[in-house]
Amino acid sequence: MSPSQPSSRPPKRCLTVPKGFLAAGGTCGIKPSGKPDLAVIAAETPCVAAGVFTRNRLPGEAVRIGRRHLARARRTGAGVRGIVCNSGNANVATGRREAEDCLAMCRATAEALGCDSRQVLPASTGVIGQPLPIEKIVDGVGRIARGLAKGAKADHAAAQAILTTDTRPKTALRRFELSGTKVVLAGVTKGAAMIAPNMATTLCFVTCDARVDAALWQAALGEAVAGSYNRMSIDGDQSTSDTIYALASGAAGGRSLSSRTSPVYRVLRDALVGLLSDLAEQIVRDAEGFGKLIRVNVTGAKSSRDADRVGRAVVNSPLVKCAVAGGDPNWGRLVMAVGNSGAAVRASALRMRIGGVDVYAQGQPTHLTSSASARLVHKMQANEVPIDIALGLGQASAEWVGCDLTAEYLRLNTEYTT
Amino acid sequence: MSPSQPSSRPPKRCLTVPKGFLAAGGTCGIKPSGKPDLAVIAAETPCVAAGVFTRNRLPGEAVRIGRRHLARARRTGAGVRGIVCNSGNANVATGRREAEDCLAMCRATAEALGCDSRQVLPASTGVIGQPLPIEKIVDGVGRIARGLAKGAKADHAAAQAILTTDTRPKTALRRFELSGTKVVLAGVTKGAAMIAPNMATTLCFVTCDARVDAALWQAALGEAVAGSYNRMSIDGDQSTSDTIYALASGAAGGRSLSSRTSPVYRVLRDALVGLLSDLAEQIVRDAEGFGKLIRVNVTGAKSSRDADRVGRAVVNSPLVKCAVAGGDPNWGRLVMAVGNSGAAVRASALRMRIGGVDVYAQGQPTHLTSSASARLVHKMQANEVPIDIALGLGQASAEWVGCDLTAEYLRLNTEYTT
Repeated sequence: MSPSQPSSRPPKRCLTVPKGFLAAGGTCGIKPSGKPDLAVIAAETPCVAAGVFTRNRLPGEAVRIGRRHLARARRTGAGVRGIVCNSGNANVATGRREAEDCLAMCRATAEALGCDSRQVLPASTGVIGQPLPIEKIVDGVGRIARGLAKGAKADHAAAQAILTTDTRPKTALRRFELSGTKVVLAGVTKGAAMIAPNMATTLCFVTCDARVDAALWQAALGEAVAGSYNRMSIDGDQSTSDTIYALASGAAGGRSLSSRTSPVYRVLRDALVGLLSDLAEQIVRDAEGFGKLIRVNVTGAKSSRDADRVGRAVVNSPLVKCAVAGGDPNWGRLVMAVGNSGAAVRASALRMRIGGVDVYAQGQPTHLTSSASARLVHKMQANEVPIDIALGLGQASAEWVGCDLTAEYLRLNTEYTT
Repeated sequence: MSPSQPSSRPPKRCLTVPKGFLAAGGTCGIKPSGKPDLAVIAAETPCVAAGVFTRNRLPGEAVRIGRRHLARARRTGAGVRGIVCNSGNANVATGRREAEDCLAMCRATAEALGCDSRQVLPASTGVIGQPLPIEKIVDGVGRIARGLAKGAKADHAAAQAILTTDTRPKTALRRFELSGTKVVLAGVTKGAAMIAPNMATTLCFVTCDARVDAALWQAALGEAVAGSYNRMSIDGDQSTSDTIYALASGAAGGRSLSSRTSPVYRVLRDALVGLLSDLAEQIVRDAEGFGKLIRVNVTGAKSSRDADRVGRAVVNSPLVKCAVAGGDPNWGRLVMAVGNSGAAVRASALRMRIGGVDVYAQGQPTHLTSSASARLVHKMQANEVPIDIALGLGQASAEWVGCDLTAEYLRLNTEYTT
């Protein structure tokens, strides 16, 4: 990883830096390896909560129940008191037990926190098709929740316990002001590492001490996810369990934020975009078989939708991903991907750069001087390859992040046999 | 290749079996290897013609000009007299010369055939971004067209001359009757082999001696492509030059077919589907890095669109492709791909089989007996892996064909450097 990425050095503290939160993580015996497998994030008082879930039409029960609990928290104003997450078993495709086990996890957590089980948001990640060892989890939740605390140790334990095949915990922190009130935003995430039969589940949990209206918090999370996690792609597949939960305690005080048109809202949303982009990039850099990061900067699109189409098409194209892996500045594959994106494009208006070097303009490849050629070869060897695509048709833009397609990815994803 | 695939043994004769056609192929010096690089298909009298092109929004000029010539042939009733195709250079992204060179190819062919240049349909495939050696092509067309002939030798020469990195020519033939008239349908194709900087161009040329109305012929080709080429995917990328041309000479005689609701139309369309499916499958089997064919049979979809969504999602999922390469009967990745397809799905109604063995039903994996397990392992080793996905929600179905993602594909697509 590049030393210029501050995100690569996890801050000592994280989830419990925003006021009003406690964290804990530990081992309840789900993973054969004996590694940490259960995390609890608790709020001292009921929180405003928001969630964004996989759009996969065959989601796991944790997604269904999480959606339901969130809707209830908003409808009744009862708020959310905690998040419980186990790793090592996704609790997906286990038939009738799936919902029962998920609810049992929520109940055990609610008992430990002294709240209603519908104030708990669940998440599970890991092997699919195998029943959850629910007794171990229920026992574990009680024991681990007794260790709920603030501080670096607790934060680290929670960040560790949600991982599956990730090689390192992923955390981020942002401090900023909302109308003069100092607030903190923190997050942990786990990545889309994909050894079968794991399900590439992306999970992300965010804590914040801002005072914010529930509908506004959901809107901010939705916008921030669209501008971060939804602009990252490792292999274009979306798991059945992808979940992002965000809790806002209000413990920072100040006036409650409730207007979406206020400039203060934009400050909050932009901080969330920054936090989530940081976390999403950490996921890409820790993806299985990761070799190089591809950063696609699309500008001049007719619409924001078109900008996203182009970004997505480029980072998802196997031929582009292979070219980056092989260090080949293949502008032809970029032309193909842009043309296939479905976005409005015109060859005569299109300009493309790889690693800051012009490679294509006005319908043809740019003639490269020998020094530009050498620079291009050098840029393709770096561990991050920027690709700029200027469509020249409008004002919309988008930045997408992806990674190359390497022999190591293939090895990891073909050699495992169930 | 499996001996059960009749398509794997090319018929001795092909394009010139339908009455009214001549073929030729030869070398004009485009490829450094000196391999054949120019094919001409000529019609003795003006033909009814149809075409289907890449949906890429940055298509090559051959696509634009081919579209224009086809539209003119239909508008004026002048018909089409021939197809000219060079391999080794795609004539894409060469700026202003692109259109001029393509038109020069058409003119040279028209001169040789004694027709208007707008009665010629052009195609080019190969390296992009390099000017076409147009003098060599103009010279070559004249010389090669003098060899236009009927019979196996001419057919083979044409089938050879359109290839780029394909390892073998791909041809197919269908004989059938339309209202008592014997007709023949023939086709040649080249595949989506993708060594950079080639553009994975798929080309297909069809000859037929049926008497058929122009609008009906276009409708039949469109439907047949939707049911064959558009249900094949190697890596989800679509080139800037993909083109299918179909010529109908009417030389078989009989009544002209003009009603789309007639059962005779269905006979013609089904023969076209059979011919094109045969050719499309040959492309998949000759794809770079090909290891195993994946045949996805989707049934019980709510709509034909949904059936296609599921088939496309499964054959395009890198995780499914890796699982097949690794011989892993990974039903979890299938659940994920089906859920991501956008089609209406319900876990409780979904059933899936791999290699004819039940692996998933009613929201959970099927318990496998040891003999079923052994059969499944064996089926995953075959060079063709059938995957049946029964959605249980309606009557629509679709068959999709794809291939695995192998280390060899990666090697071929990453090691080349421009």
